[in-house]
Amino acid sequence: MRLRKKPGVQNKLQEMRELVIPNPEVNKGNWHAVFGNTNPLHVELGTGKGTFITTLAGINPEINYLGVEKVPDILYIAAKKAIAQCLPNLRFLHMDVENLPFIFEDGEVDRIYLNFSDPWPKKRHSKRRLTHRHFLEIYKKVLKRPGEIHLKTDNQGFFEFSLNEFSEMGFRLRNITFDLHNSGFSGNVMTEYEERFVNLGQPIYRCEAIVLPE
Amino acid sequence: MRLRKKPGVQNKLQEMRELVIPNPEVNKGNWHAVFGNTNPLHVELGTGKGTFITTLAGINPEINYLGVEKVPDILYIAAKKAIAQCLPNLRFLHMDVENLPFIFEDGEVDRIYLNFSDPWPKKRHSKRRLTHRHFLEIYKKVLKRPGEIHLKTDNQGFFEFSLNEFSEMGFRLRNITFDLHNSGFSGNVMTEYEERFVNLGQPIYRCEAIVLPE
Repeated sequence: MRLRKKPGVQNKLQEMRELVIPNPEVNKGNWHAVFGNTNPLHVELGTGKGTFITTLAGINPEINYLGVEKVPDILYIAAKKAIAQCLPNLRFLHMDVENLPFIFEDGEVDRIYLNFSDPWPKKRHSKRRLTHRHFLEIYKKVLKRPGEIHLKTDNQGFFEFSLNEFSEMGFRLRNITFDLHNSGFSGNVMTEYEERFVNLGQPIYRCEAIVLPE
Repeated sequence: MRLRKKPGVQNKLQEMRELVIPNPEVNKGNWHAVFGNTNPLHVELGTGKGTFITTLAGINPEINYLGVEKVPDILYIAAKKAIAQCLPNLRFLHMDVENLPFIFEDGEVDRIYLNFSDPWPKKRHSKRRLTHRHFLEIYKKVLKRPGEIHLKTDNQGFFEFSLNEFSEMGFRLRNITFDLHNSGFSGNVMTEYEERFVNLGQPIYRCEAIVLPE
């Protein structure tokens, strides 16, 4: 991310405590209460500037959305976008993905979105990829049965790696496409990155990975 | 296949009855007796001119190989190649893939190879693709548990379709690669088609699909 670090952004995020939840661990097992309903909970990991999740939250008022982002300056951009749209079914978390099990009870999440995650192309960095089996174990823990991961990427190597990791960890793959924008898939919501790649004529890879009841 | 139809090729195949098994259905459940041992049985569907399977049979004398091909003129080329190499662990079957359940007992086959199968790119022909779920049901029936399908193709659309069909039918995917010849995979045996595509610089897609015990 080539953003200049903004001074005082941590304070600004703290002032947005209705939207960017402080101490999210106190809501573990009780996220329905935060939203005031029992609607399904969908979580985007690495929510970036928030176009994807704010668009989805606007389209689907009957689903609760949480955007997780660890870079405060970027999260601040996403949060400002969300505030402008007054979306009661959207919140953000400023945290690392590793901490998901401290935030969610087992089976509390219905769906996880992974959009254009950092591919970490060097093999020695493969453990940092958000579809490394270490992370898949975490997602399995917090996902409902059946639960879903929806993944999009422009990076073929990351996609290949992800398919193998999902399979190896017992996820059932579904709707694999090597060229989302020429696949006939309807209802796609684009991310900021996606728009850029599509304008360059690059294919977008997508799949769903389902965790089934044991 | 742009081969001129050779007159009398059916007769020639019948004369090769030691190698090209006539009435293979009489061996159902008893293929070990044909080979005179209890070694694993690997079957290539659409064996073409036979380079792949004759090479493998030469490398792995402790595995029994059956090459299945429905086009007699092509099978004749494969059979002549095999005769020249005197391979006791290789036989051919002149038949359609649909007939596998008449030829093999449930669980009699350890591994199936699908190499550069016709991709049938038009959607209305998808049922003819050898990874259509109709065929996967047949393979599941004749494969041991665990049993394996090893697939290679140069056709991205066919590969995408195959991954989805395998997943949908409950196969566990393994060793998915989008560029076999740059993947670090060792021990690859090339087919005639593969050599041509690799010389053109085109990537080869490969995966393994495992059928697990229920």
